[in-house]
Amino acid sequence: MASGSIPILKLGSTLLSTIQVELHDTVVDAFQNDVLEEIERTGASGLIVDISALETVDSYVARMLANTGKMAKLMGAETVIVGMRPAVAATLVRMGYFMEGIETALSLEEGLELQARRSKLLEAE
Amino acid sequence: MASGSIPILKLGSTLLSTIQVELHDTVVDAFQNDVLEEIERTGASGLIVDISALETVDSYVARMLANTGKMAKLMGAETVIVGMRPAVAATLVRMGYFMEGIETALSLEEGLELQARRSKLLEAE
Repeated sequence: MASGSIPILKLGSTLLSTIQVELHDTVVDAFQNDVLEEIERTGASGLIVDISALETVDSYVARMLANTGKMAKLMGAETVIVGMRPAVAATLVRMGYFMEGIETALSLEEGLELQARRSKLLEAE
Repeated sequence: MASGSIPILKLGSTLLSTIQVELHDTVVDAFQNDVLEEIERTGASGLIVDISALETVDSYVARMLANTGKMAKLMGAETVIVGMRPAVAATLVRMGYFMEGIETALSLEEGLELQARRSKLLEAE
């Protein structure tokens, strides 16, 4: 992992990342790369990104997060964004970003439950 | 949570925190407070601190982390530090800090296993 990058932890078949630094463009780009490489390396079926530390999200970051989720999905991993603050949700909607294709949940635990339910659905299919 | 603080996520009876920012003294102080308050609020029995993003740990931070672990223990929560880099381990030993009273593990998953085993031992007593 390069210096200053965002750690990606493994939790069963789910990858977990807590974003804390204000997301400059280079950090988001590196994060996107790292996440996709970790999905490939670990074969993870889920990705949870905690953004509870983010007080603001600009349009570039919102788009990159949404795109990361879409890329992860193409690789077979579902993304859940957890811990979004009310102000961030309000800003995203005002900007016209609804994070389509990405699930959100209130907390890490609810995000994990969501992914567990989804894996069971997939198994039942 | 105040601006710039380190998120503390709940995962069952364990609290999880990923430290990414270089730990300035004020951040470490706030982190210690936040962790203890979260242990009180949630009744957590375990605390996992991921430091895989830290390339260096100075003596102040090492002491604060060790003290946070001791305080958590007094409140009934066992601390496991995970993801310590080789260079950090080397520095700590050279500085004479062995993080006594704090368990360490290679990864989040091993840290969770360690805490699960410990809870079972406690239940068996």
